[in-house]
Amino acid sequence: MSLRCASWSGWSKTALVRIDRLRLSITGFSNPRIKHARSLRDKKFRKREGQFLAEGLRLLTEAREAGHIPRTLFVAEKRDPQPLADLIEDAVLERGGDVIEVSHDILAKLSGKDNPQALVGIFDDIGTTLDEIDRLSAKIWLVAQAMRDPGNLGTMLRTGDAVGAGGLILIDDCTDPLSVEAVRASMGAVFTQAIVQCRWEEFLPWLRSGEGQLVATSLKDAVPYREARYAAPCFILIGNEARGLPDDYAAAADVRVKMPMLGKADSLNAAMAGAVMAYEVLGQIT
Amino acid sequence: MSLRCASWSGWSKTALVRIDRLRLSITGFSNPRIKHARSLRDKKFRKREGQFLAEGLRLLTEAREAGHIPRTLFVAEKRDPQPLADLIEDAVLERGGDVIEVSHDILAKLSGKDNPQALVGIFDDIGTTLDEIDRLSAKIWLVAQAMRDPGNLGTMLRTGDAVGAGGLILIDDCTDPLSVEAVRASMGAVFTQAIVQCRWEEFLPWLRSGEGQLVATSLKDAVPYREARYAAPCFILIGNEARGLPDDYAAAADVRVKMPMLGKADSLNAAMAGAVMAYEVLGQIT
Repeated sequence: MSLRCASWSGWSKTALVRIDRLRLSITGFSNPRIKHARSLRDKKFRKREGQFLAEGLRLLTEAREAGHIPRTLFVAEKRDPQPLADLIEDAVLERGGDVIEVSHDILAKLSGKDNPQALVGIFDDIGTTLDEIDRLSAKIWLVAQAMRDPGNLGTMLRTGDAVGAGGLILIDDCTDPLSVEAVRASMGAVFTQAIVQCRWEEFLPWLRSGEGQLVATSLKDAVPYREARYAAPCFILIGNEARGLPDDYAAAADVRVKMPMLGKADSLNAAMAGAVMAYEVLGQIT
Repeated sequence: MSLRCASWSGWSKTALVRIDRLRLSITGFSNPRIKHARSLRDKKFRKREGQFLAEGLRLLTEAREAGHIPRTLFVAEKRDPQPLADLIEDAVLERGGDVIEVSHDILAKLSGKDNPQALVGIFDDIGTTLDEIDRLSAKIWLVAQAMRDPGNLGTMLRTGDAVGAGGLILIDDCTDPLSVEAVRASMGAVFTQAIVQCRWEEFLPWLRSGEGQLVATSLKDAVPYREARYAAPCFILIGNEARGLPDDYAAAADVRVKMPMLGKADSLNAAMAGAVMAYEVLGQIT
């Protein structure tokens, strides 16, 4: 069996009726395509290959609606009929990608879960650069510094999506936004938000080279977050979960704001603080 | 070895110097104490025993500071010296509980993680009832309806803690707030917030029997959440993650509010909506 048989591009609509017969099927764990997909669970390989994994009908539908079509799509053999899944399969084949049927066990291996989703896609890296983003295309941008938790990072992406932010700028050593965990936690927002990874030394000069208000959540020299006045494009900077922002980062901001923390436990997490801040800014500037 | 040897109560401070020699040690997986602790990972057993598990130095320190001392404390044998852990051990023994040394493997079995925390405690159920809470003791109360995700429920507890809420009232069929996952996600707020589980048919008459504004997040017949006016004690009602609130629940609220959702993905989750709402209410009523 040639693994290339479904890789022809330029199919016409008429040809699409033949899709069912053009699906591939892989049964062995040691198949190189499976090994390659599985390796993308590892950051090193994601980086080298410039690809990442996303799984599940919901996530892949968000991806499709945002114009991101997987290069390779693994589907459960004998999956239940599902119109949204058909749309994704069609889009993959139409773009010249492969649809590959695999067993439940192989899907479990790809997704790292005993009870895997019926769809796993390999996508091209969607990261971008500071130079490529148009800061005036959105009123809000989220900026996370050294965010370590994939769940928090995914939540930041969701928040950005909810408030119509342009994207998420990751400063310093953040967890990989394209890890399976972060992608899952983003519930598809990874496909709607621009994602930039850069150092503070790159970010600050870029920010100051154009319009933009930098707002930092900070405890030092800060005003109550509801009393500050925000202006678009507003860059909301959230620090590391455990340590907060470095002092000099906070000092470089145009506004430093603090949120009330009345709790006894160490309560609000970084991603929630991001959501509360983003909604306050959204409320003021729209 | 008698398992009761560390169960004496009423020790004087002088007697506490002997703690090190009064620790118990269990080495077998099949020991009844281990089996009992392990069974508390299951909701049915938690309910029957009126006990639950919490693990980790941070969580158990939050518990201690909130006045909750485990009845039984499992500690890693040969754990590193750690003053905060010593304080917890002392408190357990002083209250007549047991401190039990176990192997790494047994801890892993108790915590369900390959890399377990060095402390796992068994606590008495901390749930309470509507009749026992003093609604005027706090300005904000969070109310979750059919919240299914333990991570979201833990986050709601954290939010409640952060805004100084009195507690979390769980309506209808919510995930168990005392599951290992929810307790972990609460980062200790499970010990600072009152937790009530009840049916809507109990909650509404109770609410109407005293002061209280019921605010529902809803899409129908709702005002923008920043334009609504909130009054203490304010009960913020958040609906199920997938379906939102039932129409009749929303209709029974004093105020129905909606939040802007500009996203392309299905973006803001229930717990984040709760955090944004809680901070808006806090901002208005303090």
